[in-house]
Amino acid sequence: MSDNTWILTAHCASELGTVDAVTGYLYHNGHYIEELHSFDDKISQRFFIRACFRTDGGFDEEKFRTLFELRADKFDMQWELQPQNHTPKVVIMVSKFDHCLNDLLYKNKIGQLNIEIPAIISNHPDLKPLADWYQIPYYHLPISADTKPEQESKLWQIIQETDAELVVLARYMQVLSDDLCKKLEGWAINIHHSLLPGFKGAKPYHQAYEKGVKTVGATAHYINSDLDEGPIIAQGIEPVDHTYYPEDLIAKGRDIERITLSRAVKYHIEKRVFLNDNRTVVFKD
Amino acid sequence: MSDNTWILTAHCASELGTVDAVTGYLYHNGHYIEELHSFDDKISQRFFIRACFRTDGGFDEEKFRTLFELRADKFDMQWELQPQNHTPKVVIMVSKFDHCLNDLLYKNKIGQLNIEIPAIISNHPDLKPLADWYQIPYYHLPISADTKPEQESKLWQIIQETDAELVVLARYMQVLSDDLCKKLEGWAINIHHSLLPGFKGAKPYHQAYEKGVKTVGATAHYINSDLDEGPIIAQGIEPVDHTYYPEDLIAKGRDIERITLSRAVKYHIEKRVFLNDNRTVVFKD
Amino acid sequence: MSDNTWILTAHCASELGTVDAVTGYLYHNGHYIEELHSFDDKISQRFFIRACFRTDGGFDEEKFRTLFELRADKFDMQWELQPQNHTPKVVIMVSKFDHCLNDLLYKNKIGQLNIEIPAIISNHPDLKPLADWYQIPYYHLPISADTKPEQESKLWQIIQETDAELVVLARYMQVLSDDLCKKLEGWAINIHHSLLPGFKGAKPYHQAYEKGVKTVGATAHYINSDLDEGPIIAQGIEPVDHTYYPEDLIAKGRDIERITLSRAVKYHIEKRVFLNDNRTVVFKD
Amino acid sequence: MSDNTWILTAHCASELGTVDAVTGYLYHNGHYIEELHSFDDKISQRFFIRACFRTDGGFDEEKFRTLFELRADKFDMQWELQPQNHTPKVVIMVSKFDHCLNDLLYKNKIGQLNIEIPAIISNHPDLKPLADWYQIPYYHLPISADTKPEQESKLWQIIQETDAELVVLARYMQVLSDDLCKKLEGWAINIHHSLLPGFKGAKPYHQAYEKGVKTVGATAHYINSDLDEGPIIAQGIEPVDHTYYPEDLIAKGRDIERITLSRAVKYHIEKRVFLNDNRTVVFKD
Repeated sequence: MSDNTWILTAHCASELGTVDAVTGYLYHNGHYIEELHSFDDKISQRFFIRACFRTDGGFDEEKFRTLFELRADKFDMQWELQPQNHTPKVVIMVSKFDHCLNDLLYKNKIGQLNIEIPAIISNHPDLKPLADWYQIPYYHLPISADTKPEQESKLWQIIQETDAELVVLARYMQVLSDDLCKKLEGWAINIHHSLLPGFKGAKPYHQAYEKGVKTVGATAHYINSDLDEGPIIAQGIEPVDHTYYPEDLIAKGRDIERITLSRAVKYHIEKRVFLNDNRTVVFKD
Repeated sequence: MSDNTWILTAHCASELGTVDAVTGYLYHNGHYIEELHSFDDKISQRFFIRACFRTDGGFDEEKFRTLFELRADKFDMQWELQPQNHTPKVVIMVSKFDHCLNDLLYKNKIGQLNIEIPAIISNHPDLKPLADWYQIPYYHLPISADTKPEQESKLWQIIQETDAELVVLARYMQVLSDDLCKKLEGWAINIHHSLLPGFKGAKPYHQAYEKGVKTVGATAHYINSDLDEGPIIAQGIEPVDHTYYPEDLIAKGRDIERITLSRAVKYHIEKRVFLNDNRTVVFKD
Repeated sequence: MSDNTWILTAHCASELGTVDAVTGYLYHNGHYIEELHSFDDKISQRFFIRACFRTDGGFDEEKFRTLFELRADKFDMQWELQPQNHTPKVVIMVSKFDHCLNDLLYKNKIGQLNIEIPAIISNHPDLKPLADWYQIPYYHLPISADTKPEQESKLWQIIQETDAELVVLARYMQVLSDDLCKKLEGWAINIHHSLLPGFKGAKPYHQAYEKGVKTVGATAHYINSDLDEGPIIAQGIEPVDHTYYPEDLIAKGRDIERITLSRAVKYHIEKRVFLNDNRTVVFKD
Repeated sequence: MSDNTWILTAHCASELGTVDAVTGYLYHNGHYIEELHSFDDKISQRFFIRACFRTDGGFDEEKFRTLFELRADKFDMQWELQPQNHTPKVVIMVSKFDHCLNDLLYKNKIGQLNIEIPAIISNHPDLKPLADWYQIPYYHLPISADTKPEQESKLWQIIQETDAELVVLARYMQVLSDDLCKKLEGWAINIHHSLLPGFKGAKPYHQAYEKGVKTVGATAHYINSDLDEGPIIAQGIEPVDHTYYPEDLIAKGRDIERITLSRAVKYHIEKRVFLNDNRTVVFKD
């Protein structure tokens, strides 16, 4: 990933000329498109585009933004530009389970995930040693019914002070307040330990056991005010059989959860995910 | 599959000696066990066993049954014996969709499924040409709210007259009466066009579209009085993405449905499936 | 799929302006891009693009072609244009195995595959009844070492007379001559009954059995002069275990073969596949 | 996993009475069989059995072994007995890549893998910090063409002194000498970074790139004197496409390797794997 490769994403209502607004602009400014993906949703009538382009010689980002804004405005486009090797700041929230956290930290360390983690926040002290080993600040913010507003306010403060661009709930086992959900809408990813919309609520693997299912899954989705019902980014699934007691389903589930969450985070930071009402468009690869 | 290979299955409450009741009997009668699988469910406290054995020289089935019954009685075992190459009579029920029917007929023809189909029953005439090509009697039993009891009574008559050992609902789009459900409990397999328990009811693929899911699936289960909630035998699943409109999900679903249903039928006729309360034990291979 | 939706594909050496050559042209002619995918292979330094666009009002195909050619010429682009609902003529070649043929015919019938089959050619008479049922002309062209040149010449004549745009070798068990391979290069798809490059040559499932593999697969690839080594379009794979004797591997393989071949044919006719030296670029969806 | 649950495995040439030798013995000694799996390979004519049984009250292991040996001798059975919660000592060998090691250590820590790791041995110092964090002795044994015999001799000494029951080559990038291979035959597991028998030798992911494959995989197998050709325990596979450059294939491969290796280790320590000539029998669950 070289310094002079950029990712431009945009979306707006479907209209003639939206593709050219992006590709024509890039061409006329001498930028070389390495990969391009656009999609028009016929039902929601919205347009989505992701272009990965190379700039040779000096690139004046400020000028690019100013001039592109003029084009984008005509279509009421929302757009974003970032270097391909941009390393976003990601705050991770956890409780006691460490399988998702461990996977994110490990993949980041070996370069499979290109993020910077300025803070791990937990309502429990248990995972501090893991954070320490990776030399990441760990904030223990205990919570009770009484202290929830204060705890969330501290939590929000950390997210802001660290300039987080993404918040990942890596098995954070507290229900967020409506207010915090709203603040995090579209830029916080949660892992739900079932294949939504099946088995919502508590103890999904026990529910699955009772039903005698032959597959278990997990869902990574954006947070919104509708608990566990935010737009789905990725889902993972594995076969199981009658020999899986609830604790075995939970163990199998852990593997699915960590893989699914890491995948969703990767899609997000590579700017592959777009909100499309309460669904998503994901330009995989 | 030679003539002298048999499958013996049994299940009962967990108790010391259940395995030996089967394996000791087979041994002392000189029968050679080729494959054996037993499982004790710690939660339901039930025992399940499936033995595939070879008999050399003359095999007196009557005598085997009489003597084994004495052993089985001690444990209140329910058991079944059949030649491995037994070709069960299977009645298939369909409506207008032919993807599941086509797969069953084709797999049967080429020997991947070892069944005899004495009747295909439908509430529509559409699939008669397909039945004709495979030279299978096709019964068109139209249905309306008024004629439901009569229709089901004719249907039941055919099932009985053909000595069907299994009934397969290969996308039969009518809700069965409680009475018929009860009669078919445990020996009729339905394919539900979603990954239960998500998306129950009508138009599951449209529901899935609305939710923006990233996987779709299908469930093969035994019929019981609890509509779409019978014990699950097999589930299939495939990834999808934002480019799948409802009709694309349906097309993808068709592939999953036919594969999942065929798999469940195969497990059943090979005596690999046991009821375990509202779950199943499936000794795959 | 409406009449006024078209697919334009193009590829050429990587160069600034290739994307705009397509997108700018479509925009300036008032064509609406519904889906767009481009990719630049950094290693082979080649550019690939597929645009699906809608034309409102009258569309002058001739004029489109003439004017686009002018643009394409500058980049030495190879390009193709077809209506999205184009139904290509596809000749299918078979021997005695019918699982792939059956799947293609069935998927075509129910509309999951949009092709016209003017001829099924076989070196054996066995599959004529199946062709008859689907009312497709069946050409029995027996072959021996002596008659190979004549047989291939008749075969080629049929392919030409039917205006076939694609030839599918659906388990055609004869090695084609170099000459015929060359003629079919890039527009004939073969299914190889193993996960290439493992188990080349005869009896791949027996080879797999000997090796005790835990997965079996199949490969759909373009024909070229390098037997079984043409560019890969799609591969399928399934887990197996110790209970699979060679005949079981073959049965499992059949399912993988037909699914993999159908998938490759679908990609090809939807113009999703590009040759990239001895590899392919496949814009899935 | 309670203390009084045991796993008994046995294998020998196929002969009448082999199942009863195990099940009859367990029954007559009052042991309760929770799970039982036997398989007769018709081609190699060998018999394999795995029984998981519960002993209530005091269990005299010595007496069990003595008496069972008498039965087993009649069939020339090779057999093993261990408590279900037995924690085998496993020595891990690595070079510079840490993805497999990290997965094994992590799964062991959270209890998904029940092993004790008395030593990590490497020809490089790189992974010492990881070993330190998990508080596991790390032996750095550098190697050169000249020092190979000495290095292997030290290595072997550690394996012996730690009473290792299993050796895992978690991407150990040195070819073992014939002598060491022979010593480790059947109780050392290697992860091969391709789906054997495809892409043997160096740089398999680069080979895969050149071939334009659409799937990549990994193979966990027992070490034997035939380099990379030992009996296969497990294989993993994932789809890839044209956007995967060699380094992307390597990254994808890492995920497959660690999952496949962990799975094979789990099968082995749960006594689910039997050698069957140069293949394996794996009683999964």
